[in-house]
Amino acid sequence: MIELTDEILKTVIKKRPRDSYKGTYGSLLVVGGNEQFGGAAILSASAAVYAGSGLVTVATAACNHSDLHARLPEAMVIDWTEDFATSKYDAVVIGCGLGLTRGDLLEKVLSNQTENQKIVMDGSALTIFGRGQGFRMKFPQHIVLTPHQIELQRISGLEIEQQNDESIQRFADSLGVTVVAKSSETRIFSPERETFLLTIGSPAQATGGMGDTLAGMIGSFLTQFHSDMMETVSAATYLHSRIAHDLAKNYYVALPSKIISEIPKYMKRFESS
Amino acid sequence: MIELTDEILKTVIKKRPRDSYKGTYGSLLVVGGNEQFGGAAILSASAAVYAGSGLVTVATAACNHSDLHARLPEAMVIDWTEDFATSKYDAVVIGCGLGLTRGDLLEKVLSNQTENQKIVMDGSALTIFGRGQGFRMKFPQHIVLTPHQIELQRISGLEIEQQNDESIQRFADSLGVTVVAKSSETRIFSPERETFLLTIGSPAQATGGMGDTLAGMIGSFLTQFHSDMMETVSAATYLHSRIAHDLAKNYYVALPSKIISEIPKYMKRFESS
Amino acid sequence: MIELTDEILKTVIKKRPRDSYKGTYGSLLVVGGNEQFGGAAILSASAAVYAGSGLVTVATAACNHSDLHARLPEAMVIDWTEDFATSKYDAVVIGCGLGLTRGDLLEKVLSNQTENQKIVMDGSALTIFGRGQGFRMKFPQHIVLTPHQIELQRISGLEIEQQNDESIQRFADSLGVTVVAKSSETRIFSPERETFLLTIGSPAQATGGMGDTLAGMIGSFLTQFHSDMMETVSAATYLHSRIAHDLAKNYYVALPSKIISEIPKYMKRFESS
Amino acid sequence: MIELTDEILKTVIKKRPRDSYKGTYGSLLVVGGNEQFGGAAILSASAAVYAGSGLVTVATAACNHSDLHARLPEAMVIDWTEDFATSKYDAVVIGCGLGLTRGDLLEKVLSNQTENQKIVMDGSALTIFGRGQGFRMKFPQHIVLTPHQIELQRISGLEIEQQNDESIQRFADSLGVTVVAKSSETRIFSPERETFLLTIGSPAQATGGMGDTLAGMIGSFLTQFHSDMMETVSAATYLHSRIAHDLAKNYYVALPSKIISEIPKYMKRFESS
Repeated sequence: MIELTDEILKTVIKKRPRDSYKGTYGSLLVVGGNEQFGGAAILSASAAVYAGSGLVTVATAACNHSDLHARLPEAMVIDWTEDFATSKYDAVVIGCGLGLTRGDLLEKVLSNQTENQKIVMDGSALTIFGRGQGFRMKFPQHIVLTPHQIELQRISGLEIEQQNDESIQRFADSLGVTVVAKSSETRIFSPERETFLLTIGSPAQATGGMGDTLAGMIGSFLTQFHSDMMETVSAATYLHSRIAHDLAKNYYVALPSKIISEIPKYMKRFESS
Repeated sequence: MIELTDEILKTVIKKRPRDSYKGTYGSLLVVGGNEQFGGAAILSASAAVYAGSGLVTVATAACNHSDLHARLPEAMVIDWTEDFATSKYDAVVIGCGLGLTRGDLLEKVLSNQTENQKIVMDGSALTIFGRGQGFRMKFPQHIVLTPHQIELQRISGLEIEQQNDESIQRFADSLGVTVVAKSSETRIFSPERETFLLTIGSPAQATGGMGDTLAGMIGSFLTQFHSDMMETVSAATYLHSRIAHDLAKNYYVALPSKIISEIPKYMKRFESS
Repeated sequence: MIELTDEILKTVIKKRPRDSYKGTYGSLLVVGGNEQFGGAAILSASAAVYAGSGLVTVATAACNHSDLHARLPEAMVIDWTEDFATSKYDAVVIGCGLGLTRGDLLEKVLSNQTENQKIVMDGSALTIFGRGQGFRMKFPQHIVLTPHQIELQRISGLEIEQQNDESIQRFADSLGVTVVAKSSETRIFSPERETFLLTIGSPAQATGGMGDTLAGMIGSFLTQFHSDMMETVSAATYLHSRIAHDLAKNYYVALPSKIISEIPKYMKRFESS
Repeated sequence: MIELTDEILKTVIKKRPRDSYKGTYGSLLVVGGNEQFGGAAILSASAAVYAGSGLVTVATAACNHSDLHARLPEAMVIDWTEDFATSKYDAVVIGCGLGLTRGDLLEKVLSNQTENQKIVMDGSALTIFGRGQGFRMKFPQHIVLTPHQIELQRISGLEIEQQNDESIQRFADSLGVTVVAKSSETRIFSPERETFLLTIGSPAQATGGMGDTLAGMIGSFLTQFHSDMMETVSAATYLHSRIAHDLAKNYYVALPSKIISEIPKYMKRFESS
């Protein structure tokens, strides 16, 4: 078990090269936000834009387009009832506010994964996957799951009291994916790797939209940083909690919107040349 | 008559336990915001999110969904013309911008109250209730009314000049509810309890949306803090005026949006371990 | 000719009395914002809320409701294609983004004016009125016109080069209204009164939406301050330029949104007890 | 090759004359923002408003009106499916989020150009033009193209590796237009003129929406400053990078929204009397 520290940020977050353009920092597709949970997609996409992805596109219900743009004109939108391609993006985040009726979109994303495309499965995508309707992961080594304890139960079958380092590791090994097991002490598992442990989480993070924000940050890091995948995922996860940890000194609740606005400053502070 | 001071904040606002998740801080449903008064529901829900409820959902007219998300992606929305359940929430705030034609929603909320669910009735909900169309309170000990003087008249039959400590106490006793009687010196009444008095209200608070903000804060406190209900309600009410009181030193009018943005800092400052 | 100074603010802006409620600060109706110019109504209503009116309602095209709420949840909205009453408001601002096809709304507002109701006519309302389709002012002593030079020409027939203190005074006398003649040196005229002159205007104010903001501030002052009407109008006009003047020290353009956000602080600073 | 420095800002940005009004600072039309890329038009128009154009109007898909107003009430909107005139504006920015199906709008703008009207062609407008469907430039000396490397290839036929000072100059000469060739070292070309070089660009600018922001700034400068066109375009381009350069000291990514908010302060700082 390796305890994450600020070092993971310096390891992963690289000073941007002088000669680069937005393509250098990759394209991210966020698939989420149904009629009820549009805010989840907004938070996820906002986190990705503020974390530095070159281009962020959101495939969501049409009713969410206007509010997304009102908050985040830097993003592009796709009406998710129309046909759209998912394979051209460097990474896809699916599940934030997706709801349980769009298993077809999860199927689309998974079946069109290209070898180097990263996929982050969060929220409803985990619940849908957990129902076991024959979804197949083509390149699990490039897939990240971000379940909280109940979602981990749904997707792995492990009751919460059964969820320990060994059982979660076995689950990650069996699927071949990276698992961010969210709890008050979040841990990150990857096949055949030592577990990373996060000790700086704060109860001020316990509020709606926090997971959507994290998923967006992970997706954004995956479009930009191409060293070790488990480290990249861990850096995003650590940064998310690191910001909340600091905010919690002055705020009873560290709201997602507030965390998001801090991301660019923190990344600058911890970039390595 | 007990005069509220900063002490009530320390009594009620507890340092969050390390091992907690958003469920720990409860779920709140805000029912309000018709075609004309959507802003009221936005302010109420915003206050609740900033005060720290784990999950906040707003049942409102469909035309308000986009603007709600544009301001508050942390919240979820329900189209209130569709069928939805109200019993699963830890607390319900009903009435902010509800309008006078949705007595059916008040009936739904009241008749589905579960024993431990708290209900805050504000604005139009009070006027509708005051019309006496046979609404029944199942667990009045968990119901809070937040009338200003005219609404208190409508719901209690007491003319404004008849509204004194004794008559309002009798009204609270008769219904068995907690009453936040809003005025320039707001008082809080609960059956068989000594009255709490608020002396720090500011005329800078006299502006539209202030009551909606208060109702959201009370609802949020009720999802999070489970000691004495009258004290919890009083703490939220006191905090609302405490923030406005401080803002009034520098602002001629202390707008709801501004008060809301200050809530997390004030709660941190007054939390007790 | 009396040159306005900070004194006018102290004369008009009164410290709020301890025992007051939102009704004390009056209700304002903003009628404006068609399909193209919705922003004008948003700015006008925002200025009114930030200047302290107790309740602000906007009658506007339905397409503007969502964006209004997203920026200003403190306001209420009315779909202006529906029937609505205008007489119950303490003041009405009409014309900001109204467009030229809703003369019926100007007719409605003017013909329903009650004796103590103040009306501010701005933008398109002035152009419509200037076409002379038999509009009648019932209580001109409670009507304010806020034309820039071209609008003054339209409404008075005075060519720009003919617009001088004497001719504008005669125009104000003839209608019996107060006229805020906007230019780089704005002057305020009222029947049989010495003219007020504003010398602190800044070219940083020369940008779209500035007039809408001013009209909202004047309307808001008229719902709150009931001493001399010409002084009240002048105080709002002076405050608007005073804020812009200060912003112009650091901003090349003093945008309406920025001015609006400063209003409550300036009003506090200049209130008199 | 002339390297741009802060001097270009002082040369172009003039202290506003005391006696001026919004017409003095010109009117800008932004044509862009389809169903998917509405944010691009919002950013472009926001940059123009914050840079000081007197009036900014956006012709865009109807679905973008509400979010535009929610962010920028200072702008006006036109539904681009309706007929509208483009010749009355002092400058037109076309292409930000336009998409590839509205060649008719590019045709409209180009064919209605008046002699003194400036046109900025960005994004999709360049791609459409590059398809060579017989568009004709009436007054190319008043047209600015702002291609990044791939767009420059599409519009000039020059492969990226062929794009050097000489070949781009020949392209600018052949069309008679000003070309802002965006790259990590952006250069500005005008017929028969020495090239301007920008050395302060930052990789923190490599993010979606950055080009839209630049196009809006250029358009805004062209409505306000009437000295040398190539210098005016260069000043806007330099200012855009200058702000990003400074932000990059503290922010890992310099988001368009953040850059936009800084414009008025920078213009004030560098204005010359």
